[in-house]
Amino acid sequence: MKPKNNSMLPPHLVTSYDRDAHPVEFGRVLALSDGVFAIALTLLVLDLALPAVTSSSLASTLTNMWPKFLAFAISVFVVAMFIDVHHRQLRLIQRLDSALLGLNIPYLTLVVLIPFFQGVLSEYPTEPLAYALYALVIGAINTIDGIMFWHAHRKKLLRVALPPRHLRVENWRAVIPVLLCLLSVPMAYVIGAWTALFWIALPVADRFLSRLEQKMV
Amino acid sequence: MKPKNNSMLPPHLVTSYDRDAHPVEFGRVLALSDGVFAIALTLLVLDLALPAVTSSSLASTLTNMWPKFLAFAISVFVVAMFIDVHHRQLRLIQRLDSALLGLNIPYLTLVVLIPFFQGVLSEYPTEPLAYALYALVIGAINTIDGIMFWHAHRKKLLRVALPPRHLRVENWRAVIPVLLCLLSVPMAYVIGAWTALFWIALPVADRFLSRLEQKMV
Amino acid sequence: MKPKNNSMLPPHLVTSYDRDAHPVEFGRVLALSDGVFAIALTLLVLDLALPAVTSSSLASTLTNMWPKFLAFAISVFVVAMFIDVHHRQLRLIQRLDSALLGLNIPYLTLVVLIPFFQGVLSEYPTEPLAYALYALVIGAINTIDGIMFWHAHRKKLLRVALPPRHLRVENWRAVIPVLLCLLSVPMAYVIGAWTALFWIALPVADRFLSRLEQKMV
Amino acid sequence: MKPKNNSMLPPHLVTSYDRDAHPVEFGRVLALSDGVFAIALTLLVLDLALPAVTSSSLASTLTNMWPKFLAFAISVFVVAMFIDVHHRQLRLIQRLDSALLGLNIPYLTLVVLIPFFQGVLSEYPTEPLAYALYALVIGAINTIDGIMFWHAHRKKLLRVALPPRHLRVENWRAVIPVLLCLLSVPMAYVIGAWTALFWIALPVADRFLSRLEQKMV
Repeated sequence: MKPKNNSMLPPHLVTSYDRDAHPVEFGRVLALSDGVFAIALTLLVLDLALPAVTSSSLASTLTNMWPKFLAFAISVFVVAMFIDVHHRQLRLIQRLDSALLGLNIPYLTLVVLIPFFQGVLSEYPTEPLAYALYALVIGAINTIDGIMFWHAHRKKLLRVALPPRHLRVENWRAVIPVLLCLLSVPMAYVIGAWTALFWIALPVADRFLSRLEQKMV
Repeated sequence: MKPKNNSMLPPHLVTSYDRDAHPVEFGRVLALSDGVFAIALTLLVLDLALPAVTSSSLASTLTNMWPKFLAFAISVFVVAMFIDVHHRQLRLIQRLDSALLGLNIPYLTLVVLIPFFQGVLSEYPTEPLAYALYALVIGAINTIDGIMFWHAHRKKLLRVALPPRHLRVENWRAVIPVLLCLLSVPMAYVIGAWTALFWIALPVADRFLSRLEQKMV
Repeated sequence: MKPKNNSMLPPHLVTSYDRDAHPVEFGRVLALSDGVFAIALTLLVLDLALPAVTSSSLASTLTNMWPKFLAFAISVFVVAMFIDVHHRQLRLIQRLDSALLGLNIPYLTLVVLIPFFQGVLSEYPTEPLAYALYALVIGAINTIDGIMFWHAHRKKLLRVALPPRHLRVENWRAVIPVLLCLLSVPMAYVIGAWTALFWIALPVADRFLSRLEQKMV
Repeated sequence: MKPKNNSMLPPHLVTSYDRDAHPVEFGRVLALSDGVFAIALTLLVLDLALPAVTSSSLASTLTNMWPKFLAFAISVFVVAMFIDVHHRQLRLIQRLDSALLGLNIPYLTLVVLIPFFQGVLSEYPTEPLAYALYALVIGAINTIDGIMFWHAHRKKLLRVALPPRHLRVENWRAVIPVLLCLLSVPMAYVIGAWTALFWIALPVADRFLSRLEQKMV
């Protein structure tokens, strides 16, 4: 079920990119996104700068950096999760309309903010607010992801029409991460650094729902 | 109407890349451009460094950083606008001649300078000069964009020959952003930070003209 | 011998990307990887910052930076080796399943950590621990590379079924770099900076085994 | 005249990538190169950091930064020149053998070092050594470029066999930039900052020879 596209328009008026009719333009959006992901993954490491004062031994310097290494590991995990989510999401899309193109930018911007909030976490590892903010960013990315899916379904921009029971599972796959993130915001004030466990639960929950859905076929 | 290309020349003398005859080389120019856009979008976040002195609470530290967050948000908006403009512009091009290849470099260089002028804005949020410089950079990018379109039209490098009335609207779409930016330079000395509203008006005006043009078909 | 793929599933449930059936998605994984390699290669240069105090002459400043230049040269060599290894590895893969996609992320993350451990090396050029850590990172990347190959072979994700004697050489090509890296960890405490010679031996050993294998055809 | 390639070998033993037989692998080398170019172009801007002490007015701060802006402009020009050279060079190549793949890495590494030597230039704008080093880096990149062309010609890796008289002009196009760079090294001690004029002459000379060659067809 390929959705109707506006390929009858002269090219300068086309405001949406079809996977098959405009492969170059469709590909540019993916290339831009993967470029941002690659750089975001790389920026995470910039937070791991050695302290300017190098009087102590290397071993003790590295040991004292453990909050930075922990924040780095969490962020790599989170960014890798969004790389997987974005690849999976875009794989379903037949046509990128201007709404999806528009939503992709705040999506990528929030991904790019993860290194900043990683720096906040590693600088203030005992502040619940740092965990709460981090959770809000992850939740916001998941929310945009959900809106993109919902919009693509409604406007028939998906490559296949999903049967209703699949759609129901896909909806849960969109909603549960947002709920987990929102729940982790108040939890940050109770369990502190353990809040990160909520974020690690995100892909686990997703994998579970994905298995469930595969059995439906 | 596919323009004549110089594919009769031996390949080492070809100085222009046709979308269909040289897809690898045409694609490299797009890949380079999208790489620069992805990095520019990511560099914006480097301005958001936490201050070195971390004696105060996280909440007050972040609150005091509001000019940085504002400059970040404006810059994301501006870079996203140019990503859209560049994708739209290149979509119209059938053949990149050496003039277009040459103009693409100052275009990308000015995009790469946006993070620097964002830093100037966030460091001097009360200086009208900071806004005036930012406006000049945006205006210069829009000017190059307009020259690229005008050159491509004159040299028949576009994928379609635009009918005159479309061409007239396209000219306005090129000229109006430059005028808005030039106007915002003196306004920076009158309305200060509100100058950013002029820049936010750029894509709004463009959307309006685009709608107008779509009704012409 | 093209392995069976799950293209019968609706696209939102496909969890593996076939080189031919899903070229866009397969290509995104390569683009992300090459993006990370390009940025890792570039981050290496950030360690070469001139010291803030610039009272001395340029010549003496640059001469005093020799450990930084040495660490830079070693890291470029190491990253270039992994670029070659990754390109060679992925060239053999017909289908990326979720295990390979999952292993690619720690692979890339460790590559991204090389600039950090280069900084450690250039800051502590006389500490054996700095060399030992660097060796562990290289060894870990080679280990993941070996696991990816072994997994792809077992799950029949390779483009060709390798004959047993080729497979034996390929196994040595995977194991020897890991052994060299592990051996270089204790050696770091004996021979100090000369440990880097072990790393330079990695591609030499690989080239030798590759030649051996080509004669088998 | 398509050169013989080793596509009879099993894929894990292929050590060269043909433009048509291995488009994915050929494309990865280009993607990596364009990624490095995009990041190099972007790193140039990092040298433009505002000074930490911000007591003076913005106008005077920016005016005092003129050596940084000049070094930035020169470097953008130089990097843009190498982007053009690399695109032109690779366009001629039918097959990337292991020598060309190996030479591409020091080529890209030297491109990535340009931002570092830009920083040296902007920090020591009155030191002839800074200009001499910069010239040596540009000269080295041009030398590698010439070796790549010469190797590709000898090993019949080019897409077309160039007629002798074209080959002679192409040789001059490879040699003249190297000579100009070598000449500018001693000149740096005589004319200081004006040495940059030699570098600006590089693409002018190339354009002239290119015109000459086009008339030969």
